[in-house]
Amino acid sequence: MFKEQDNTLYAQFGFKDFKEAFSFMTHVAFLAEQHHHHPNWSNVWNTVDIHLTTHDAGNTVTQKDYDLAKDIEAVYQKYVG
Amino acid sequence: MFKEQDNTLYAQFGFKDFKEAFSFMTHVAFLAEQHHHHPNWSNVWNTVDIHLTTHDAGNTVTQKDYDLAKDIEAVYQKYVG
Amino acid sequence: MFKEQDNTLYAQFGFKDFKEAFSFMTHVAFLAEQHHHHPNWSNVWNTVDIHLTTHDAGNTVTQKDYDLAKDIEAVYQKYVG
Amino acid sequence: MFKEQDNTLYAQFGFKDFKEAFSFMTHVAFLAEQHHHHPNWSNVWNTVDIHLTTHDAGNTVTQKDYDLAKDIEAVYQKYVG
Repeated sequence: MFKEQDNTLYAQFGFKDFKEAFSFMTHVAFLAEQHHHHPNWSNVWNTVDIHLTTHDAGNTVTQKDYDLAKDIEAVYQKYVG
Repeated sequence: MFKEQDNTLYAQFGFKDFKEAFSFMTHVAFLAEQHHHHPNWSNVWNTVDIHLTTHDAGNTVTQKDYDLAKDIEAVYQKYVG
Repeated sequence: MFKEQDNTLYAQFGFKDFKEAFSFMTHVAFLAEQHHHHPNWSNVWNTVDIHLTTHDAGNTVTQKDYDLAKDIEAVYQKYVG
Repeated sequence: MFKEQDNTLYAQFGFKDFKEAFSFMTHVAFLAEQHHHHPNWSNVWNTVDIHLTTHDAGNTVTQKDYDLAKDIEAVYQKYVG
């Protein structure tokens, strides 16, 4: 679901409502802490936009971004599966 | 999943890990606020125990408990489905 | 802290780290549900940007935005006080 | 605030309302993940009870418990300070 766009990995995730969107965000927040890698993300109601990029590598996409993206996608499967 | 037990509705919910358990708890927290009805609940690692009872009705099970229980069960389906 | 900017109420909130920022976001999420009014917000590490506007009023600032802004500011005082 | 009780470190934390209690729990959840050490905890409305013990050490209190307790107490100061 994540795709390279402007030197970030980007994906948009849709949910039933705000409650579900924010519960997903909570799960992603745990993943970010675990990976020591945090997203640039935004939310409006039932939609979550996530950009992943590595600041320490000059804001380019690195393996750290691919690793976090993979874990986020696995969590999202729970919500839409 | 919820069953009457000692004048409460009680259920135990299992998850893959703590991250998933707490994300579920976040969703339940929103439901509790929405229902103006809050659980007596506990968590250890990947397990969440929820007791529902109505204090204002002398700690008996009322329709408020059944309504919240139903919404919690629907959310749990997302995690185990 | 919130100020009118481009037909929204806008504020930026700073925190010690991501953990603190996301705990604040969780509190704001409850307020949003309570007000039936949800922010357009983003987060990077220890910074949270919040824009409030009323879609149903043609994306202008209304009393709903001022009311939610006031409650968010009160919560933020806890974190910086 | 935490005190030894029945081979655990135990403390009870009070808040203004459920929103504040659960935001605190979210912060504690991040700490638990960071410490790779998770509490046995429960919540009712504005009250959070936390027991810390080390399963791998035969359910006794170890340095892991003291370390997590110290971080939890520091977070709580934000809410009551």
